[in-house]
Amino acid sequence: MASSNKGLHSHHPKHFVNDSNKIVIESLRGLCLSYPSLRFIEKEKIVYRADIDDIRKKQVTLISGGGAGHEPAHAAFVGHNLLSAAVSGNIFASPSTSQILAAIRRVQSPHGTLLIVKNYTGDCLNFGLAAEKAKAEGIKVEIVIVGDDVGVGRQQGGLVGRRGLAGTIFVHKIAGAMAEKRWSLNEIKNAALLVAENIGTIGVAFDRCTIPGSTEGYFLPDDEIELGMGIHGEPGFQKISLPPSSELVQKMLDTIINTHDEDRSFLDINPEKDRIALLVNNLGGISTLELGVVLNDAFNYLVKKNFYVKRVYIGHYMTSLNMPGVSLSILKLPKDLDVVPLLDVKAETPGWINHSKVDISKLDVSLDEKVSFKESEEKLFVVNVNSQLFESTIKAACNALIQAEPEITKYDTIVGDGDCGLTLKYGAIDILKALKENQIMTNDLSGGLMKISNILETRGGTSGFLYCLFIGAISNSLRYFVAAKVEEDNNNEKDQILVDGNCFGASLKSALSTLQTYTPARKGDRTMMDVIIPFITTFTDILSSTNDDNTMLAFKDAIEAARIGAESTKGMKPKLGRSTYIADNIIKEAQIPDPGAWAAYVILNGIYENLNKQ
Amino acid sequence: MASSNKGLHSHHPKHFVNDSNKIVIESLRGLCLSYPSLRFIEKEKIVYRADIDDIRKKQVTLISGGGAGHEPAHAAFVGHNLLSAAVSGNIFASPSTSQILAAIRRVQSPHGTLLIVKNYTGDCLNFGLAAEKAKAEGIKVEIVIVGDDVGVGRQQGGLVGRRGLAGTIFVHKIAGAMAEKRWSLNEIKNAALLVAENIGTIGVAFDRCTIPGSTEGYFLPDDEIELGMGIHGEPGFQKISLPPSSELVQKMLDTIINTHDEDRSFLDINPEKDRIALLVNNLGGISTLELGVVLNDAFNYLVKKNFYVKRVYIGHYMTSLNMPGVSLSILKLPKDLDVVPLLDVKAETPGWINHSKVDISKLDVSLDEKVSFKESEEKLFVVNVNSQLFESTIKAACNALIQAEPEITKYDTIVGDGDCGLTLKYGAIDILKALKENQIMTNDLSGGLMKISNILETRGGTSGFLYCLFIGAISNSLRYFVAAKVEEDNNNEKDQILVDGNCFGASLKSALSTLQTYTPARKGDRTMMDVIIPFITTFTDILSSTNDDNTMLAFKDAIEAARIGAESTKGMKPKLGRSTYIADNIIKEAQIPDPGAWAAYVILNGIYENLNKQ
Repeated sequence: MASSNKGLHSHHPKHFVNDSNKIVIESLRGLCLSYPSLRFIEKEKIVYRADIDDIRKKQVTLISGGGAGHEPAHAAFVGHNLLSAAVSGNIFASPSTSQILAAIRRVQSPHGTLLIVKNYTGDCLNFGLAAEKAKAEGIKVEIVIVGDDVGVGRQQGGLVGRRGLAGTIFVHKIAGAMAEKRWSLNEIKNAALLVAENIGTIGVAFDRCTIPGSTEGYFLPDDEIELGMGIHGEPGFQKISLPPSSELVQKMLDTIINTHDEDRSFLDINPEKDRIALLVNNLGGISTLELGVVLNDAFNYLVKKNFYVKRVYIGHYMTSLNMPGVSLSILKLPKDLDVVPLLDVKAETPGWINHSKVDISKLDVSLDEKVSFKESEEKLFVVNVNSQLFESTIKAACNALIQAEPEITKYDTIVGDGDCGLTLKYGAIDILKALKENQIMTNDLSGGLMKISNILETRGGTSGFLYCLFIGAISNSLRYFVAAKVEEDNNNEKDQILVDGNCFGASLKSALSTLQTYTPARKGDRTMMDVIIPFITTFTDILSSTNDDNTMLAFKDAIEAARIGAESTKGMKPKLGRSTYIADNIIKEAQIPDPGAWAAYVILNGIYENLNKQ
Repeated sequence: MASSNKGLHSHHPKHFVNDSNKIVIESLRGLCLSYPSLRFIEKEKIVYRADIDDIRKKQVTLISGGGAGHEPAHAAFVGHNLLSAAVSGNIFASPSTSQILAAIRRVQSPHGTLLIVKNYTGDCLNFGLAAEKAKAEGIKVEIVIVGDDVGVGRQQGGLVGRRGLAGTIFVHKIAGAMAEKRWSLNEIKNAALLVAENIGTIGVAFDRCTIPGSTEGYFLPDDEIELGMGIHGEPGFQKISLPPSSELVQKMLDTIINTHDEDRSFLDINPEKDRIALLVNNLGGISTLELGVVLNDAFNYLVKKNFYVKRVYIGHYMTSLNMPGVSLSILKLPKDLDVVPLLDVKAETPGWINHSKVDISKLDVSLDEKVSFKESEEKLFVVNVNSQLFESTIKAACNALIQAEPEITKYDTIVGDGDCGLTLKYGAIDILKALKENQIMTNDLSGGLMKISNILETRGGTSGFLYCLFIGAISNSLRYFVAAKVEEDNNNEKDQILVDGNCFGASLKSALSTLQTYTPARKGDRTMMDVIIPFITTFTDILSSTNDDNTMLAFKDAIEAARIGAESTKGMKPKLGRSTYIADNIIKEAQIPDPGAWAAYVILNGIYENLNKQ
């Protein structure tokens, strides 16, 4: 390439390569290792079906191939309902006549062998010569040359004609399915020619590919992309600046479907009469995420143009190494040959992906209106609770937190990023507001807690999240344990308040275990867990050690454990959370508790003091 | 990222994007268009099975998801024997709790729903909270968190633990197959946990990915690659210069299989006892060609280490947009759960490719020794010919060409690149040498011509190729026509010489048609076709216009037509071949024939003069 055209940037030609002379052999060997229904003749770079000796007795065999660097084409399209063998050259270079002849000899069939060749001079000559030599040996062989590119117009393409691009895969698939259905060599050849005539492909590249073993390359400037590029880095017909995807896709499709451009209109196509298949091919370096965008844009534009898109294909089919670009191919479905069942029939090859088999145009994938997110119809068990007590406790916890806000903020300014106090305060205010507006069902402990959990969710932040999760888990556990107790007692007085200390303790324990599924924080990490864990452990330990109803006693000891836990975070080295990025000596010298741990203690203490007043 | 670390090069963040806020929605819509067995809830970015309402009555349902940018994960793994639904966040960001909850509600089943989550804080919290909320609604739901990364050691990973990478796909597939087999929620959850514990994954990146909608990025210097990178551009544990692929792959695999590194050994794996599955995952920007090399290297190393590799997977599974890199995952096959049939069972999803189902270690794909390229066993028909006449004619043609070499070279120096004369001369010398060594069967016209064709093949060059093709095609046609004639005449005197003018003419015509399949050159393009076409046309026209044996008369007129054809190329504008790059005025002023056309005339004239002498 002319160095005067060199783009603004150079690239890193970093590749997985051991010896650039062996890259093709090693890669094909890798392919065959992963798909043991393939066999490999290393010397001739031929990949063929392991069951070839059965197959060739029964049917026409198919060979394709060409230069390497276009994987999965062609070797990964060898298999049931597709190719019988593929021959690979070196990167971007035709296989030699003797390689191709070896492939023909290996898969030759009394029913005949069809060679499907992309229209490049080297490929045409080598495949052609191999075919002639095979004929001289008495082998029945025919050849079909595919040129589907619409990027090269008639003027520029001249006598050489259209290049063979990703649309060739349509020919492979249709011919492959026909062969498996025992069509004759002539029937398959004629059908392949018919299909080839009805394909248009256009590529776009954001840059060139880099070739393993080569350190030099030509790259496009940052503000340029190239339309009509070939798969060997051949230049395209137009360089433009990058438009939005939908505009670019429209421009590309127009080169295929526009029948008014005398130089470049190769498909006589009419939305009123013709049905089409669309192939969106990743040329190698485009993210799968973006490929979906391209398909969406292409589909939308074709539908807007009144085309009936019968089938859609997307993925890596014929790449140009790691070239960042895509090609779009349209197959105009021939009227006198129903190719759809031939495209649809499953192909057991690594390259042919599970595809759609329903008419795309009939599909509406936007289901927003149709799906209703009905909540589960199961009637939820109500955990009866003293409504006034629940309400006053919520208020007490929130108010304690609001009062402690300046203190928590002060702590967090020193050992965190300063927002802990306010985030929690705003959460408390939200809860009080909801309470005032009667949005919290204070006669159902489980339902009320779940509502509080939902309110905290919208506040965001990791601590908001963890409270939300924890309180939600308490709600779930309470409902589970109380419902189980009711069943166990066979108790019909459902209005009775059943939440005792044991039931609550079990719920706390279960919720703690849930919380610990989602956060790795444990005791000693300088987080709120330094308060919550000792609180719950102490509470449940005391309750389980005696049969008396000593809930408030247990609560009192638990609160003391929580306070000690909060104090213990003073100077503690953080392993998780807000203080991880604060220098160790600052934390050590400050001797202040973790703000999150302190806040947890404040909340628990607020609850305790309110319950203790009763 | 710290700008001080900025690599030496900037990249082109060129992407297929319309609106970066809508890229995920557009992409998922594209996916669903191409696989209409999927349904899409746009608002919540949920992709789910179209047959979900049948499925959830019968079996446990499975949900996975996470940030976008990892396609085909997770939406393309929704389908039969895999996931029931996938929820996507924005690029590299967890989906929200409400999105996940919507997905749970949509696919909830009386048999339960399992959430499979990659170990990232955001994902864990959001999926966890959604699960708790779903439970509060009475939905049966369990969660499994997968962390398979071995790039982050215990020290660095600390409490957060191992990140979830491509190995998660093993969990999806195994759990998906179990669900379809009607295993219970608990059984599937336990199996998923068991599988997750037995996976090790390591990534390598040659560079970072570029994010659609973002113009800034951090890139690696040309001489650096990074080991242990995460799928969101998280840094790895080591930067090294790029080694050969096999060394790099070995280094990567060692981080998984080495049980001596206390910090980073997560798999207790032993080649004597354990069997493994290998997953080679394209992180987005590596060519498919190279991916095969990586697989080959990985397989070779594992076999060298005495591992029994039961299954191999290769392709795009969990990408990091267009990141040029791969990850390798090893699944140690659990002893008390036979997961192989679960991996093998076909999954009808776009992301799960047709895979191997045979034991790789038992396979030898190097078949060079085993395949014998036997030529066809059909006995070839011998085209009898006067041996001395054939021999003298070959000599005459070759000598004429050798004599004309200085003239042809002179022409080609002016209107070509000067090598035409010598290339043809060397071909002629090769033929004469073969003749002298009795390598050309001069008693079989067809066999002799095929030998000449084979000799020319090794000379290379387009013209050598075309002669090789043309002469090979004459050989094939002659054999065909003469054999047909023998059959028609029911002639038993097989030793009789049967090649008459008509038979030869038909063969030339057929060979011309073959030649024209492989070269677009026609009359008027300034190539050898300007000689060959009028020669053959004149020869056959005259023969067909009379019943007398006027072969030599026809030959005479044909030679005259060939001469006129050669002369006509003087000043002719070239459309193909050697002179295409020579300025028009030079060709016009030189008034010399095309060297290739002239050489063709010289050869034909040499043949004519020899035959005329007899």
